[in-house]
Amino acid sequence: MTRAAEGRTRRAAGELTPVEARIMRAAVRLFAEQGFDGTTVQQVVDAAEVTKGALYHYFESKDDLLYEIYHSLIAIQLAGAERILAAGAGPAETVRALVVDLVETTAAHVDEAAVFGREMHKLAAERMAAVRADRRRYHEAFRGVVERGQREGVFRAEPPAETVTLVALGVVNQLPSWYRPDGPKPPGQLGAEIADFVLAGLRPD
Amino acid sequence: MTRAAEGRTRRAAGELTPVEARIMRAAVRLFAEQGFDGTTVQQVVDAAEVTKGALYHYFESKDDLLYEIYHSLIAIQLAGAERILAAGAGPAETVRALVVDLVETTAAHVDEAAVFGREMHKLAAERMAAVRADRRRYHEAFRGVVERGQREGVFRAEPPAETVTLVALGVVNQLPSWYRPDGPKPPGQLGAEIADFVLAGLRPD
Repeated sequence: MTRAAEGRTRRAAGELTPVEARIMRAAVRLFAEQGFDGTTVQQVVDAAEVTKGALYHYFESKDDLLYEIYHSLIAIQLAGAERILAAGAGPAETVRALVVDLVETTAAHVDEAAVFGREMHKLAAERMAAVRADRRRYHEAFRGVVERGQREGVFRAEPPAETVTLVALGVVNQLPSWYRPDGPKPPGQLGAEIADFVLAGLRPD
Repeated sequence: MTRAAEGRTRRAAGELTPVEARIMRAAVRLFAEQGFDGTTVQQVVDAAEVTKGALYHYFESKDDLLYEIYHSLIAIQLAGAERILAAGAGPAETVRALVVDLVETTAAHVDEAAVFGREMHKLAAERMAAVRADRRRYHEAFRGVVERGQREGVFRAEPPAETVTLVALGVVNQLPSWYRPDGPKPPGQLGAEIADFVLAGLRPD
């Protein structure tokens, strides 16, 4: 296993060394300001105040950096979903916990989410497939909870579970366009309000 | 008024000459393939098979093109909202009509919506302000209908109208990431399913 591949495995478990974290913060800022195409590895190296060797010790390429910016967020969110599902609460409580966790983690990484939303189409096919697989996993876990609630009769049967999932995850994926860290409502409250509204649409008649 | 400014006024009314339409189609395709920064005016001219003079007759700059790609869509949607609101139906019927119209028009211009979502942060400040004003106008019109329904008691009072609006418009703004023109459900059906779910969350107890 190469050093960079080892880094990927470790980061997939949510672990970041301080140097990796510094490199990724610099990359997020530069990609946000200049775009992915407009940023060179040398600029990331300079901004992070590391050597090029250090960067390539952790990351294979600029593509790898863009991928990790997203992956560091979705890995946290998938781990959150696993924890929430393992707690074994009922469908309504589970939907609420998933939405609140998604809003809180996206708000805490809003620059990463914004940059990735704009630049993800630049990823090479293999990386893009990995991103899509992660997103699909989350999407299907969420839809599964809705379907279970509908089977158990605690949710209304009419709304297609797929539509409910697109609506609930859509507002979170759009968060970078409307969320302000200095806004009046903290992320936990925004998440609870969104969850309440989604659950209201699922109340049985 | 300059020729390019005249074009802007005319396009704001939803009118496009065949040459403008050809230039904008070429620009959407190139921006989608190469990004906004990676595309030159000369490439747009070549792809549209027009002269550079013809392009500058209609558009002041590449920024103008990116703006118009979005503006041609939001202008249709704002006109749709005006028509729907003028019809004077009740809040539920109005919310349904707005959501269906938004989904249908976004699906019909999904490449424009995708390119714009990715590249809008490149717009100069003045244009960005115009985009934000248009989006805010739509957002406030939608929220106004929700608030009216809540005041009249036909909608549940609990969900903040702002949250309802973020949820309903969020799924539409995310449409480029999930909509497939060859998918099993036509846009009108997708819009109706989303509208039904939003309205279910607004049913009074």
